[in-house]
Amino acid sequence: MTHPSSLDSLIEALRCLPGVGPKSAQRMAYYLLQRDRPGARLLADSLQRALSALRHCQRCNTFTEAEICERCLSSRRDPTQLCVVETPVDMNMMEQTHAYNGLYYVLMGRVSPLDGVGPRELQLEQLMTRACDGIVQEVILATNFTNEGEVTAHYLTEMLKSRDLRVSRIARGVPVGGELEYVDAGTLAQAVRERRAVTQ
Amino acid sequence: MTHPSSLDSLIEALRCLPGVGPKSAQRMAYYLLQRDRPGARLLADSLQRALSALRHCQRCNTFTEAEICERCLSSRRDPTQLCVVETPVDMNMMEQTHAYNGLYYVLMGRVSPLDGVGPRELQLEQLMTRACDGIVQEVILATNFTNEGEVTAHYLTEMLKSRDLRVSRIARGVPVGGELEYVDAGTLAQAVRERRAVTQ
Repeated sequence: MTHPSSLDSLIEALRCLPGVGPKSAQRMAYYLLQRDRPGARLLADSLQRALSALRHCQRCNTFTEAEICERCLSSRRDPTQLCVVETPVDMNMMEQTHAYNGLYYVLMGRVSPLDGVGPRELQLEQLMTRACDGIVQEVILATNFTNEGEVTAHYLTEMLKSRDLRVSRIARGVPVGGELEYVDAGTLAQAVRERRAVTQ
Repeated sequence: MTHPSSLDSLIEALRCLPGVGPKSAQRMAYYLLQRDRPGARLLADSLQRALSALRHCQRCNTFTEAEICERCLSSRRDPTQLCVVETPVDMNMMEQTHAYNGLYYVLMGRVSPLDGVGPRELQLEQLMTRACDGIVQEVILATNFTNEGEVTAHYLTEMLKSRDLRVSRIARGVPVGGELEYVDAGTLAQAVRERRAVTQ
């Protein structure tokens, strides 16, 4: 007798969103029904359209509406470099740097044994096939510097080294504009260990 | 070239949810598409079903799938008491106390001039009609003790008093289990001002 059933189902369905618990789901449901019905309708339509239109690029594994995404098809990209990132968000971050002009491979996750995500779940064979196309010469690992990201990078290094590919990892250290006083000890320790020779 | 259009529309549509900014919307979209497609489908369906099934109860204004909600139709409720709350969540909170057995009226909002919500937007005439049905004898104002809730209660008091109805407000004071040391000064001041005579 607390809620009509369609309202209950909506609240339950909203909980599939990451970071949304029972209280927020309830608040969202009431908000949509009371204040933003056009928004709710749009959301329902967008979900359905995205579900039917989006699939994974056969080359870089990111979301695309075509067989192969625009970036992979672009002729202005350097096909000898392949940058491996965890998510499409990370790929966008890399793009915003304007420091990289090669191609990408998006893992859509990371090796995380605690969450039951191993190399098999990440379908790393697809990355192997992609990296061993004969054109790629260097694989740049740009997974996060979290535990899971590091494990993933380590795993990929092992796999790729055996295939005679150059493998590199993006640099770790004190951030640009960072002050030693405010950097955590772990980062500073790594920055010392991985110091570079200064060339004039 | 950053996102396929259906992904962009989904991210944009998710932003209609309260408390969801561009970053969370992006995270939610990727999550749904990568990890929970059945959940996304269910959400789309639930939204559509809720939008078409739910309307406002003609008596208490809460969400219902029927013309008049179950609670308003119940014969075990005292029809002489009418409790006015801001939202269906507040109504559920009241129900959980098991201290009230009358009927409800849900404002679906509060008077909040800064947000452009005045008495007209809240459709207070509907509450007037409901309260003046000849059966209701007491209207209990249970709006929040926020500025907007207090303004709403004040406004309703003025409107209802002129119709010869008994109007009451739920009590304000130190919470049950509360210690004076940890109660804010405003609450304590009100508790002193609104002290009750002790009867043996």
